[in-house]
Amino acid sequence: MHPFDRALDLRTIDTGLVRGATEPQWANMVGPFGGITAAALLRAVETHPDRIGDPLALTVNYAAPIADGEFDITLRAARTNRSNQHWIAELRQGDEVKTTATALFGLHRDTWTDIEALLPKSAAPEDIPRGNFFEGVVWANRYDMRFTEGAIPEDGVLSDSSITTLWVRDELERPLDFAALAAISDIFYPRVFLRRGGYVPAGTISLTTYFHADKAQIDAVGSDFVLGSAHANAFSRGYFDQSAHLWSRDGALLTSTHQLVYFKD
Amino acid sequence: MHPFDRALDLRTIDTGLVRGATEPQWANMVGPFGGITAAALLRAVETHPDRIGDPLALTVNYAAPIADGEFDITLRAARTNRSNQHWIAELRQGDEVKTTATALFGLHRDTWTDIEALLPKSAAPEDIPRGNFFEGVVWANRYDMRFTEGAIPEDGVLSDSSITTLWVRDELERPLDFAALAAISDIFYPRVFLRRGGYVPAGTISLTTYFHADKAQIDAVGSDFVLGSAHANAFSRGYFDQSAHLWSRDGALLTSTHQLVYFKD
Repeated sequence: MHPFDRALDLRTIDTGLVRGATEPQWANMVGPFGGITAAALLRAVETHPDRIGDPLALTVNYAAPIADGEFDITLRAARTNRSNQHWIAELRQGDEVKTTATALFGLHRDTWTDIEALLPKSAAPEDIPRGNFFEGVVWANRYDMRFTEGAIPEDGVLSDSSITTLWVRDELERPLDFAALAAISDIFYPRVFLRRGGYVPAGTISLTTYFHADKAQIDAVGSDFVLGSAHANAFSRGYFDQSAHLWSRDGALLTSTHQLVYFKD
Repeated sequence: MHPFDRALDLRTIDTGLVRGATEPQWANMVGPFGGITAAALLRAVETHPDRIGDPLALTVNYAAPIADGEFDITLRAARTNRSNQHWIAELRQGDEVKTTATALFGLHRDTWTDIEALLPKSAAPEDIPRGNFFEGVVWANRYDMRFTEGAIPEDGVLSDSSITTLWVRDELERPLDFAALAAISDIFYPRVFLRRGGYVPAGTISLTTYFHADKAQIDAVGSDFVLGSAHANAFSRGYFDQSAHLWSRDGALLTSTHQLVYFKD
């Protein structure tokens, strides 16, 4: 089984209760990669028998580090409408809440469409060497990342801009799906590293992703690279936010994603 | 009592259960203004005896229209850490969930600070006449809005840009606080109206706001205008997202806010 699917291998214990386990290949410096936790929560909803429609919005709040081992996800549809559904989920280990989430699923219908966000200009991924990531960050090895702007900063080299743009795909070329998109939406290392020229203590505390793509658009991407670009808005008294977009190679906006990050500096 | 405070006048029924009522002065076309609901949910957490710190992030999911009359908000701290706290809340009428929310509160500490988002250029609010809003939208009368870009579109006049920039303050010059900031973060009418040249059926289904300002910065704004600027990222198969910033007149970024909106067109 692919390491992504192993991390999302959830067993139904009861109605609204599934059990999973951390997967060592997705380890971050403390606990698992936030993106894999977001993906597991999304997958828990996706595979619930009452679920209708596709993921539209996902908010994941990282309340405490997840320890290595098993975790339980409780989830329920707080409201089911004709065309959409509002979910609430919590991830626990023992009695401790480690993560909370809300998810909005819904049906798509044909409407006027337009993309206003600007696709970043960049060379083709085939023309860019595979990049390095911070040492000891195991999950980063699950991805083939090719930075066109704002790669991992050299120690002490401060940048005026917090923008990182990169091509990214699954290292083993697993085809994209909603859960994989949820994970990749958290792939951008904390923008404060770029601004401050290296590692400072930092961690995502809340992550929201909007899914613009439907299943057909995601299937069309297959195992190709997607282009991601992230930037920060403001750093203020212990917290900053960063926003990002993920694009298909042919210019479809797949997700818009935002997060609030704590930092010490 | 000011209509904003009346809308946020919550009575404690039990630990983790408060009761409020819709306030006619905040009526939208269907149900109350989403911003006032966000403010009421934030206020419920703010006034909970266990609350620590200031609002950092708020996600509100609009699951169904709130009917005129009383509503109950249930809330609990899912996790309390040393410096932050994760809340889950639900707004119900009878047995029906109308709104779900998660809120992150936390302590501020002195760190390196910087604002990367660009303050929109605009004339002073004193040099711009008070703008009109869509007819029949009662809540809009609670604000003095002065548009510098992307005012209410004339019927049939399509715009290439979804950007609206405006100065806004409470009509009665009630001083700003966190709850008022939460409300104003939802003040931007659906961007699809601007692009499509008038009203189309549309409604916010999920709203996330990050609070960059602490209490001292908010108090410094007092009852002055704040500058808001919003834009859409993508319109796709029944849904679009819009992102916005709120600024103080002296250029402090107060909030970054994002929402997913359904539409028919």
